[in-house]
Amino acid sequence: MIGNFTYHNPTKLYFGPNAVESLGDELMKYGKTVQLIYGGGSIKQSGLYEEIMEILLACGKNVVEDGGVMPNPTYDRVKLGAKRAKDNGVDLLLAVGGGSVCDYAKAVSVSAYCEENFWEKYYIRFEEPTCKLLPVGCVLTMAGTGSEMNGGSVITNRAQKLKIGHVFGSDVMPKFSILDPQLTYTLPERQMIAGIYDIFNHICEQYFSGEDDNVTDYIAEGLMKAVISASRKAKKDPHDYEARSNIMWAATWALNTLLDKGKTTDWEVHMLGQAVGAYTDATHGMTLAAVSLPYYRYILPYGVKKFKRFATEVWGVKEEGTDEEIAQKGLSAMENWMKELGLTLNISDLGATEEMIEGIADATRVQKGGYHVLTRPEIVKILKESL
Amino acid sequence: MIGNFTYHNPTKLYFGPNAVESLGDELMKYGKTVQLIYGGGSIKQSGLYEEIMEILLACGKNVVEDGGVMPNPTYDRVKLGAKRAKDNGVDLLLAVGGGSVCDYAKAVSVSAYCEENFWEKYYIRFEEPTCKLLPVGCVLTMAGTGSEMNGGSVITNRAQKLKIGHVFGSDVMPKFSILDPQLTYTLPERQMIAGIYDIFNHICEQYFSGEDDNVTDYIAEGLMKAVISASRKAKKDPHDYEARSNIMWAATWALNTLLDKGKTTDWEVHMLGQAVGAYTDATHGMTLAAVSLPYYRYILPYGVKKFKRFATEVWGVKEEGTDEEIAQKGLSAMENWMKELGLTLNISDLGATEEMIEGIADATRVQKGGYHVLTRPEIVKILKESL
Repeated sequence: MIGNFTYHNPTKLYFGPNAVESLGDELMKYGKTVQLIYGGGSIKQSGLYEEIMEILLACGKNVVEDGGVMPNPTYDRVKLGAKRAKDNGVDLLLAVGGGSVCDYAKAVSVSAYCEENFWEKYYIRFEEPTCKLLPVGCVLTMAGTGSEMNGGSVITNRAQKLKIGHVFGSDVMPKFSILDPQLTYTLPERQMIAGIYDIFNHICEQYFSGEDDNVTDYIAEGLMKAVISASRKAKKDPHDYEARSNIMWAATWALNTLLDKGKTTDWEVHMLGQAVGAYTDATHGMTLAAVSLPYYRYILPYGVKKFKRFATEVWGVKEEGTDEEIAQKGLSAMENWMKELGLTLNISDLGATEEMIEGIADATRVQKGGYHVLTRPEIVKILKESL
Repeated sequence: MIGNFTYHNPTKLYFGPNAVESLGDELMKYGKTVQLIYGGGSIKQSGLYEEIMEILLACGKNVVEDGGVMPNPTYDRVKLGAKRAKDNGVDLLLAVGGGSVCDYAKAVSVSAYCEENFWEKYYIRFEEPTCKLLPVGCVLTMAGTGSEMNGGSVITNRAQKLKIGHVFGSDVMPKFSILDPQLTYTLPERQMIAGIYDIFNHICEQYFSGEDDNVTDYIAEGLMKAVISASRKAKKDPHDYEARSNIMWAATWALNTLLDKGKTTDWEVHMLGQAVGAYTDATHGMTLAAVSLPYYRYILPYGVKKFKRFATEVWGVKEEGTDEEIAQKGLSAMENWMKELGLTLNISDLGATEEMIEGIADATRVQKGGYHVLTRPEIVKILKESL
């Protein structure tokens, strides 16, 4: 563990098949007006919308509807939601859905009473909120982003072709999140495996930095092994409660600020993936999957020791050959697992074209915490190999 | 992950070499009167007392002294501290020391305004507090109990020869804890290794239950490997910051309620060890070490699959021989590590005698979450083997 850090994560989690039953208790802690945030309407098909609405009305709440939030929530949509929250004097933002609606709810929370242009303030200048914040609660229907227990909020600015995440502090983290693994059963397989890779990559992004013998890396390896094991079971049977619950719980811990403690962290795969997402509007987890192997193979020589540890500790690769050979075998094992799950391994399959490469490279932010800081030509090279 | 659970741990942690600098910011959140709780005076020798006192005075606090708390804080001592807190209208309990002072501070927190006999209420009937609670903050000088980020409070009733822990909810958890690994440097080696075994055993107690493929168990294995690695380095050089910081951070996560999620948990080693402690007043970690191997060897046949996994995943034992043979080799590897550290492996070395066995057995609470529920004759047998 290096240097000084603070850990503070006050989000209260209700986990399990009856978790939604606790929503009423939580609602009673807040005022009368609740902005109900959700996505494209799958919660109406599943019956969850009705269930939540019944609880809200039983608790005597005024409900301000805010449905139809898109998978990659936009700056314009947040502006609308923020105005709605302020105009209605909303007391609680209740996000029902996956990471996108949680991210959106946090963006609304910090923007409703923000006097400045919030895109510039939070997503360009990365400043902290100084205005009144609205509390956020989540009912999660999809495991992946970890948004249910962190301050992260990724927003897309279509006009600027930018998809940028701000990780806010503990004041912006959800006050409570409700995690019932059964609610993830109805998710299409493609969304499930994209979520699984998102989780796995969150762990990788934090793991592939530093070379010390850090507690955090041991926890990361445990989480990776848990995700690999559960993903295979969930692929076979999406209604395997054991597997889906392990995936959901691993997702939360993969990105709730624990794994970055004592680490510099990388996050370049996310920068590349988000840039691809800004151009293609493709599913987040798939964009990560499609750029990961070219990126990791490219940086492997700069972090051989850790990639070797990844190979032996996470994938059970035998210690035969040079360190670099062992390290390469780890990435091959990871590639096999990715193919087994059915992840998209090329950005062209997501709609990216050779012509977009320069633009995507422009939109890719360079991170400095990993084993190698990418130059512009290196970004282009990796993107071309991802095609 | 089985069934329903709630996770809520709002303790704010400041970690690292400059962590104490954050104390002032935290103090400003509370009223004027601070009860300063500490142990036998080692913080006066180290200069920490003076440093803390300067910060308290600079923040304009009235300090109510409460020093001299013993290593196994007693019911009588808590009564005294609780009266002191109430009489002085204390606004914050600031514990500076190891797990004992933190545990004591929590006991004072729930007892100061408790109208009933608090020993009976909390430590015999295990009820939750209904009275006003006093906020607790910690400055940790010893890694082991995890008390800095949980609701646990172990108190000894000398008259009844009982040492009992109550795990309170998130309201009783410290509001903040300050963790500077350098503050643990001055600890005598014996205390350091007792703390290390306490950490390791906290993980074991939660790990050795259930047979599902649980995220929590993967995290537990990672934490165990981190503790083993760091303990060897700290034994060689107690001023190895890397090692001491990893031990301190692992201690916090070994017992902050994360590892029991989705698990039944065992805790029988703690029940045996605490009973030995009530009779001998020996260091907590050493009592655990002295009963562990006889206990684990006794229950191994009831949980072979998990003990085998422990052997291969934590100790790198090769998969040769029967499951039981592999499992036994794991415990042998653990025994070698315990000897290497210099842990006490017999309760007779801690002052326990054959004559005490029946009394210690009487004081041993039987837990039901592990692989086997002990009968009275089995408890006696294990204690005799621990002699």
